[in-house]
Amino acid sequence: MKSRISEALSDFFFEYETPRQVLVRNRRVAVVCRLIQLGVLAYIIGWVFIYEKGYQSTDTAVSSVFTKMKGVGYADVNGEQRVWDVADYVFPPQGDSSFVVMTNYIITEGQKMGMCPELPGKHNCSSDADCERGSFKRHMTGMCDNATKTCEVVAWCPVENDHNIPDPPLLMSAENYTLFIKNSVTFPIFDVTRSNLVEGIDATYISKCLHNPRDAPLCPIFRLGDIVKESGFNFETIAKVGGAIGIVLDWTCNFDVDVKHCKPIYNFHGLYGNPAETDKARASVGYNFRYAKHYMEDTVQKRTLLKVFGIRIDVIVQSLARKFDIIPTLTAIGSGVGIFGVATVVCDLVLLYLLPKRKFYKNMKFKYTDTHGQHDSESLGLVTSSVYYTDEAKARPGQDTARSNDPDSEAGSTETEISKK
Amino acid sequence: MKSRISEALSDFFFEYETPRQVLVRNRRVAVVCRLIQLGVLAYIIGWVFIYEKGYQSTDTAVSSVFTKMKGVGYADVNGEQRVWDVADYVFPPQGDSSFVVMTNYIITEGQKMGMCPELPGKHNCSSDADCERGSFKRHMTGMCDNATKTCEVVAWCPVENDHNIPDPPLLMSAENYTLFIKNSVTFPIFDVTRSNLVEGIDATYISKCLHNPRDAPLCPIFRLGDIVKESGFNFETIAKVGGAIGIVLDWTCNFDVDVKHCKPIYNFHGLYGNPAETDKARASVGYNFRYAKHYMEDTVQKRTLLKVFGIRIDVIVQSLARKFDIIPTLTAIGSGVGIFGVATVVCDLVLLYLLPKRKFYKNMKFKYTDTHGQHDSESLGLVTSSVYYTDEAKARPGQDTARSNDPDSEAGSTETEISKK
Amino acid sequence: MKSRISEALSDFFFEYETPRQVLVRNRRVAVVCRLIQLGVLAYIIGWVFIYEKGYQSTDTAVSSVFTKMKGVGYADVNGEQRVWDVADYVFPPQGDSSFVVMTNYIITEGQKMGMCPELPGKHNCSSDADCERGSFKRHMTGMCDNATKTCEVVAWCPVENDHNIPDPPLLMSAENYTLFIKNSVTFPIFDVTRSNLVEGIDATYISKCLHNPRDAPLCPIFRLGDIVKESGFNFETIAKVGGAIGIVLDWTCNFDVDVKHCKPIYNFHGLYGNPAETDKARASVGYNFRYAKHYMEDTVQKRTLLKVFGIRIDVIVQSLARKFDIIPTLTAIGSGVGIFGVATVVCDLVLLYLLPKRKFYKNMKFKYTDTHGQHDSESLGLVTSSVYYTDEAKARPGQDTARSNDPDSEAGSTETEISKK
Repeated sequence: MKSRISEALSDFFFEYETPRQVLVRNRRVAVVCRLIQLGVLAYIIGWVFIYEKGYQSTDTAVSSVFTKMKGVGYADVNGEQRVWDVADYVFPPQGDSSFVVMTNYIITEGQKMGMCPELPGKHNCSSDADCERGSFKRHMTGMCDNATKTCEVVAWCPVENDHNIPDPPLLMSAENYTLFIKNSVTFPIFDVTRSNLVEGIDATYISKCLHNPRDAPLCPIFRLGDIVKESGFNFETIAKVGGAIGIVLDWTCNFDVDVKHCKPIYNFHGLYGNPAETDKARASVGYNFRYAKHYMEDTVQKRTLLKVFGIRIDVIVQSLARKFDIIPTLTAIGSGVGIFGVATVVCDLVLLYLLPKRKFYKNMKFKYTDTHGQHDSESLGLVTSSVYYTDEAKARPGQDTARSNDPDSEAGSTETEISKK
Repeated sequence: MKSRISEALSDFFFEYETPRQVLVRNRRVAVVCRLIQLGVLAYIIGWVFIYEKGYQSTDTAVSSVFTKMKGVGYADVNGEQRVWDVADYVFPPQGDSSFVVMTNYIITEGQKMGMCPELPGKHNCSSDADCERGSFKRHMTGMCDNATKTCEVVAWCPVENDHNIPDPPLLMSAENYTLFIKNSVTFPIFDVTRSNLVEGIDATYISKCLHNPRDAPLCPIFRLGDIVKESGFNFETIAKVGGAIGIVLDWTCNFDVDVKHCKPIYNFHGLYGNPAETDKARASVGYNFRYAKHYMEDTVQKRTLLKVFGIRIDVIVQSLARKFDIIPTLTAIGSGVGIFGVATVVCDLVLLYLLPKRKFYKNMKFKYTDTHGQHDSESLGLVTSSVYYTDEAKARPGQDTARSNDPDSEAGSTETEISKK
Repeated sequence: MKSRISEALSDFFFEYETPRQVLVRNRRVAVVCRLIQLGVLAYIIGWVFIYEKGYQSTDTAVSSVFTKMKGVGYADVNGEQRVWDVADYVFPPQGDSSFVVMTNYIITEGQKMGMCPELPGKHNCSSDADCERGSFKRHMTGMCDNATKTCEVVAWCPVENDHNIPDPPLLMSAENYTLFIKNSVTFPIFDVTRSNLVEGIDATYISKCLHNPRDAPLCPIFRLGDIVKESGFNFETIAKVGGAIGIVLDWTCNFDVDVKHCKPIYNFHGLYGNPAETDKARASVGYNFRYAKHYMEDTVQKRTLLKVFGIRIDVIVQSLARKFDIIPTLTAIGSGVGIFGVATVVCDLVLLYLLPKRKFYKNMKFKYTDTHGQHDSESLGLVTSSVYYTDEAKARPGQDTARSNDPDSEAGSTETEISKK
């Protein structure tokens, strides 16, 4: 038993099997086959490996973004000068990746809780009967105001009048605000951390640079007017009704080269609707929200309501890092070898089914065991004896002419000759 | 030299090799083998290609979300009417993807910096000795207040009493608020940008629609009460203590069909804990935070402290786009061909090790070179001569009966006959 | 016709082809080949399956984070006691995943809109001519103030003086604040939802635990001082000028085992710049923003401006779940079989091109069809006859000595003998 195992083991280690092949000397098929094989090879090397970098595994980053606006806005409303600084025009103030820069506003000062008639045009009425008590959109008292001919509501009074949006926008000076973006990305699988303040972008450079796609593509200081222009909007239009712009930091990195070549690319685009689109039927242009500043006046709670129109900026980090990895490499090679096999299958189909000489090639390629399973079992006993009688195969030579021509069937004929002698 | 290279090249291009095969005519093995192969084929075509769409590559989107609440809340606390509008009940006000809608609150008005006793029940004391100076949770003065029998603390006074949460919640009218969601997704690899305001969802439609999973599944206007109901909560419960709900926009898109079929599916679910779960031991039900509005009264800084209970809504964008790509297609085919090979290996194992006629099949399949490496090198010289003496192979016919039966060993016998003549 | 189809079908089902192989008994090549094959096998089983878990598909989660700070800060500025509670020191207040804890501040109280000279050192002037009207950074009036020798600006007056950052930081007590993190993750493909309040982390445990990487790694309550220490910063330094810290919740889960083993790992690191880095030239240390509280005093709008220095905390959720999936498993196996094929190709190259006996092995492995395509077509007619004349192959025996030794060329010789008889 032991010797049989050791024999099997030594057989396993000292023998190796390699498939027997037919070298088909047929120019047409061979050329077709070689072209397919070269195509597969070109696809694997050129497309999978070089173009798509199939030898690399990929990773996306977790990232953190901090933003800071700078600049002072100046509005002149009916002769009253008003200055807006960062603490007043950025929402929220703490430097999130998504924030709003106020560019226009409708201010309603001194609102206090009470009852007052609605704006003309909303909830018109001729008598109290027209004003249903307690509708949800505005809490109505059920009274009709005689002066304005509108229903009376419980609200912060006086109610905001936002029919006319200031035009030109009150804070056109926002065009000159600057935005500083600090972004840190970590690729967890490759264990690499990068900041958008890459090599060479130090405090000295930042203090005097301004982002420009051509001259200063890595400067993290952006002029708001430039951002709007790059994303295809007109500043005055977007400043008036508001809008949303995405600043995309594209970290497409190849960690097979030095990590210092991993630098962000900044690009800008409008988030809701193409700025060039003139189709006004598409809903929801503009961006606005309401914001209240509460205060106490003579023990009465009051508030200043701001309807803020602004540019909402979303800093979006998009990342894709690649690095050599043995698994995708071998998977690509392995499945490439599989596709090589498909090439052989295609050529074999041509060879065996389409060529005029197909029967000849079939005989070259295939060897047949005897036809019937029944005979198989009969002849089984003979196999173990030292001489193998293949007469039965010889016995029906007319059955299949192709088969009797089988260049491999000489096994029978040869031994027949031996037996004849 | 040159001619040898050109010869090798022409050999390469005008020859092609195809493996020689044995066609085994054994019904049992053949049926097993064909079934395995059909199974592999069914798996590759049915599962990998049709079901899992293995011919496509995938991409996830970068997205931007903007939200806007509408509706007015109305609270009646001890006869005092109070109206809450968007500027007051949404935190933060600027329309982020994650925000809180206030549904209940505990208000503590007129707080000013000073020293006052703690609430009964917290830091009870009988004398100053029980009050340690400067503990971090509350900055104690070290005095014990005789009236309340609690320690005196430096704090915004009077301290907030949040023992009793208003029940029913003060802003039950929040149920009728509506939420508008604007979402833009960009699939960077496929270079497709979509908005949840898809074809047909225009300003006219939005102005009158209300989201409903059956009748209006694409309307981006949601009633807060519906959101809560869809996510399985009871509105009054969640309004009282607060809770967190995720609105998932599921962009599962197939870009092999027209891009206009890429539409979001909205679904709603509770974020922390299953609403149906009755296990109260699981920590942290509810959602609340404190918020202060500061004001100046007679040159004294005061504040109104709000403990806000609310529904926190997270708009979560989940995306997976697919598009035909040559690489996953060929990888799937290539590895499928590999698995086909596994089928042949399995059948060969059956054929060569399990069948009674295994020795016969072994001889059909394998051809042996002579046994010993030593003999190999001896016979090496002879190979280059035009006649190859294989007598040594003939010389040990009894060594392995199976081998002498090798139907391919006629190479020796035939040439022996030639030499005999 | 019908019978031919049924015959083809029965042929297809009752026959199966298996490649014919040469068993090469050459120890050196066999050992090399077996070692390569074992290497491939070890790579597939050991690396792809066990180490990289190639039999699993992966999924990343959509997540939602809620945070809550606790603790009261206490500042003593020039004898004036001031208490800071959660409503005052956390920005934004509603418990976002990214927030700022104020640790130091410069307060400028009672600012009102007006005209006032700039701070000494900024926009110095000797006469009005030095002050350009309407520059964008500060809106200048064009006047030079005689007392301070600086230009007059339209601004919130008095202007903030932030030359001196309070040192030590005013809110060193922030070290003892605690942070509670609630995080819910959903793996959409595997349909699993988990919370960081895993099994065993119930209300009782949370009420008394404090996170510690060794003793309480799953407790979701963190001391701010510990977070800063774990991320490598010195608390006093970061509290003075501010900084940004990422708290990473790493959900690396294997859903082939019980889902309850899917637990988060918390780790902490500085987000912008390595805290150990002493290179001060790298830009932008610190973190600060300005925040204003508006109020009304005698019908004049005033504000309190805070320059807030703080620790910005980003809770970053990183997730990777794995589960057994048939497709990656079979893809790995399939491409592994492909690489097995590469092993055979390498051994064949050794066998056929490097070994001294290469010609012998070449003859064993390959069988040749006749040389010229032209002859192919001539002999085509003969193939269909029952006897195949291969004399043309016999006619040039000297052309290639190796070929005449071809152990498979007996097809010709045998039949020649037949014809000789």
